[in-house]
Amino acid sequence: MSDRQLHVAIVGATGAVGVEMIRCLERRQFPVGKLSLLASKRSAGKTASFQGKDLVIQELTPDSFAGVDIALFSAGGSISKEFAPHATAAGAWVVDNSSAFRMDPDVPLVVPEINPDDARHAPKRLIANPNCSTAIALMALWPLHQAFGVTRVFASTYQAVSGTGAQAIEELAAQSRQWAAETDGAWDDARVSTPPSVYPHQIAFNVLPQVDSFLETGYTKEEMKLENEGRKIMHHPDFRASVTCVRVPVFRAHSLAISAEFAKPITVAAARAVLASAQGLQVVDEPELQRYPMPLDLAGQDDCAVGRLRQDCALENGLAFWVVGDQLLKGAALNAVQIAELLV
Amino acid sequence: MSDRQLHVAIVGATGAVGVEMIRCLERRQFPVGKLSLLASKRSAGKTASFQGKDLVIQELTPDSFAGVDIALFSAGGSISKEFAPHATAAGAWVVDNSSAFRMDPDVPLVVPEINPDDARHAPKRLIANPNCSTAIALMALWPLHQAFGVTRVFASTYQAVSGTGAQAIEELAAQSRQWAAETDGAWDDARVSTPPSVYPHQIAFNVLPQVDSFLETGYTKEEMKLENEGRKIMHHPDFRASVTCVRVPVFRAHSLAISAEFAKPITVAAARAVLASAQGLQVVDEPELQRYPMPLDLAGQDDCAVGRLRQDCALENGLAFWVVGDQLLKGAALNAVQIAELLV
Repeated sequence: MSDRQLHVAIVGATGAVGVEMIRCLERRQFPVGKLSLLASKRSAGKTASFQGKDLVIQELTPDSFAGVDIALFSAGGSISKEFAPHATAAGAWVVDNSSAFRMDPDVPLVVPEINPDDARHAPKRLIANPNCSTAIALMALWPLHQAFGVTRVFASTYQAVSGTGAQAIEELAAQSRQWAAETDGAWDDARVSTPPSVYPHQIAFNVLPQVDSFLETGYTKEEMKLENEGRKIMHHPDFRASVTCVRVPVFRAHSLAISAEFAKPITVAAARAVLASAQGLQVVDEPELQRYPMPLDLAGQDDCAVGRLRQDCALENGLAFWVVGDQLLKGAALNAVQIAELLV
Repeated sequence: MSDRQLHVAIVGATGAVGVEMIRCLERRQFPVGKLSLLASKRSAGKTASFQGKDLVIQELTPDSFAGVDIALFSAGGSISKEFAPHATAAGAWVVDNSSAFRMDPDVPLVVPEINPDDARHAPKRLIANPNCSTAIALMALWPLHQAFGVTRVFASTYQAVSGTGAQAIEELAAQSRQWAAETDGAWDDARVSTPPSVYPHQIAFNVLPQVDSFLETGYTKEEMKLENEGRKIMHHPDFRASVTCVRVPVFRAHSLAISAEFAKPITVAAARAVLASAQGLQVVDEPELQRYPMPLDLAGQDDCAVGRLRQDCALENGLAFWVVGDQLLKGAALNAVQIAELLV
């Protein structure tokens, strides 16, 4: 693609990720000549601000992509499956945030800090954006892998409700407000009276060991993504990941506790040196000052952060660490815009 | 000890655990002839209800233990170190909920469902109650160990604020109420204006990868307890545990995500059969119905619950599972009263 101003479309422009895509294009001064904001019929007619102007959101149709150079999709897998082919047929490049095409061998799955070259071989003109927890985990795991050769990881997630979308954010907010209004300091039983509608159970003052739907193996789909997507992104077919994905009552930014085993010996000092020079990653690891990454600090930040580095107690060549990143940014919108930058 | 009515003392009677100890003695019809409620000077003179009567809380002094048969301590390690010797010198048995004596070779560390016989050999007349997360984890791990021989585990915790005590419960409640009062649905930045006083950082809408203080290795003290206490309780000196302990904005009941490796082959079906017949443990594992253990359901329950059973993705003989228990009950007060029952 040339250096000219581009016609960019955002599919799912009113969603939690879509809103961040607009902000990322602005903040990173992406060469946008024209921006088409597309969403469901329900949202059509609303406006959103871009570079100081109000843009009217249009209904997504098969004809929405005439003249579009790059379309960023974040409206769920079924919308991507239906409309991405219309976009590419119209000549656009597609960066898709859903899981619909991630494991397609003809679709590169890209984290620009890790495998930017994969974006060059996209015969469908379609590039997939990885799962949010996977992208955040790999921001720390990849530099360690390059230096020490990761063999397997054990990971538990602490996932914010922003990963589910705007309605889930509102559900946590509404339940929290309701708890404050209904109870007189009740903590023995912190249930609120309104049944949940987005999650199967109350998320406020609770944790749910379920993210996405269950497979026959007992794992959720989400729990398999670190292994499956990690193998593809790192070009590491033997990589193994045992993952438990848990939703926590946090609005924004995902956290992961990871124990990683490596082929080569690893020390905390050597790991810290490697991580300190990694792109897009901050090392926040001063336990004596009670400084470590936390979701409240990482919300709204482009960089991910890693800390709690320590020699793993139960692995020979092992490192335990804690990594946090904004699910809406590196886990979604930012990474998608970074992929688009690779295409320019 | 004979079958007569006993004189029981509770040290730390106004704390979150002490209050539950009173309720456990009542609920389990422990043979209490007299109950002495002891606390700091600050709490002396307050009253607490036991068997329908209001008992006046007395200031803890070295002379508090005259005639006491069993003293249940839950007022922190320094109080236990100072006053437990007075209690035993006065002829009482001590069940101590602090970490002060847990690793003393002359002090048994007991989970009654696991190693009740250890309580018989207590030369100091003092028995220690394990760490809360450790007790809850072992409720699921011990039956699996008996059947399959556990070698090591990788565990991440989701610990409720009740583990820190009454002030921490109030801090989460106050921050949550303040968020509801101060913000107009703000979730991009869910910080409240009042600085925290119990935890080093805001706990509402956040997770803190720190429970207890840090060791030079980078682990917290809390993170070493599953390995150290697990070895002693299970009589398994080779047991290894890699743990990340995380505080979450939940009032009551701790959760753990565990990947466990075993010496013998293990299947989900065989594990489920073993767990289903374990004492004090419920199997809640119907993912197709979105049923799994959650802290909101386990709050106030004596039994722990295990679910999310699956063949571990990254271990040869491995099982991944999720276990939840009320930190104030099996993790503290209930287990202490169960130990006292062993002494009767």
